[in-house]
Amino acid sequence: MSADLREVRVASEKVLQSGFLHVFRDRVRLPDGNLTQREYIVHPGAVMIVPLLEGEDGATRLVLERQYRYPVQQVIIEFPAGKLDQGESTLTCAQRELHEETGYTASQWARAGVLHPVVSYSTEFIEVWFARGLTLGERRLDEGEFLEVFTATPEQLYDWCRNGQVTDAKTLIGALWLQNVQSGAWMLDWQRADAFA
Amino acid sequence: MSADLREVRVASEKVLQSGFLHVFRDRVRLPDGNLTQREYIVHPGAVMIVPLLEGEDGATRLVLERQYRYPVQQVIIEFPAGKLDQGESTLTCAQRELHEETGYTASQWARAGVLHPVVSYSTEFIEVWFARGLTLGERRLDEGEFLEVFTATPEQLYDWCRNGQVTDAKTLIGALWLQNVQSGAWMLDWQRADAFA
Repeated sequence: MSADLREVRVASEKVLQSGFLHVFRDRVRLPDGNLTQREYIVHPGAVMIVPLLEGEDGATRLVLERQYRYPVQQVIIEFPAGKLDQGESTLTCAQRELHEETGYTASQWARAGVLHPVVSYSTEFIEVWFARGLTLGERRLDEGEFLEVFTATPEQLYDWCRNGQVTDAKTLIGALWLQNVQSGAWMLDWQRADAFA
Repeated sequence: MSADLREVRVASEKVLQSGFLHVFRDRVRLPDGNLTQREYIVHPGAVMIVPLLEGEDGATRLVLERQYRYPVQQVIIEFPAGKLDQGESTLTCAQRELHEETGYTASQWARAGVLHPVVSYSTEFIEVWFARGLTLGERRLDEGEFLEVFTATPEQLYDWCRNGQVTDAKTLIGALWLQNVQSGAWMLDWQRADAFA
């Protein structure tokens, strides 16, 4: 890290604590010694799952969701995702969210990487996990959660990323991972679900 | 759009208005008729630029930045980006931000697409523009803005996306676009900077 870019906390104040968003305002010392304020959301972190459904023909299909996202006033196409519960590991969260939202459980898992959706105003990180060996069970949505589950081919997903039908950042990054895993450029380290325990 | 996923605003209240973050809390009607609350940040929108620097050897290098991002307490590698000023077009903003942050002006521009960094709690969108035909001038950072400009090859960027050195969502999505433009899978419609006027 370039030491001369660092900003140092002088004071911190919670300016909004509500049901959902927790906003802090910190007083920080800039690299030139001046003081300024930084406002940001404190977020517990989240996971996203890229679920690979192997068809009888050997072709892969992806499990995706359509969900109305109120801030952007649109139905958005997304990979399954959700926030970490207190003390929960990212894999446990990924297994829980995949099952709750889509009904699927997976026999094999691989951690791809981590992303920061908005480095300028949120502490949020999202860990990206791939899942395969899917078995369909019963989904259990949270109260007040409405979403449609559907499947698509990787080629359909790439097309939607190009033509603007997919705009969700984490899902676009899922496509980046998938494309490079499919081409063999990036490797995944697959493990049986019980091997992580 | 699936009509049965839609959430309808019943009331809206600004719960935080400060120097930087504007937070709203809306009362909304869910698809099943129940009422709930949605909290979100209202953001003016932003642009990101993927600046292509053609070397004397014909090889392309990318103009990137290193910046300390206080919410994630790390120096983050990013493509140049910035928020829209009131009434500003995304191209004008892209040209302004590229020049202010890196000193470069570009003779040709192409709009790639749009992304939503956090569909669950911000109205923010980021338009992605490619720039080429770069000429170096003098950069003019905002007061209190500290960042390092550097160049890298596309292959270095892809490597950093894979190994976790790049975690910024918009920059990962810039890599998705660049990779598909380089392979010829996705096309850009390049225009001279003055052709947009």
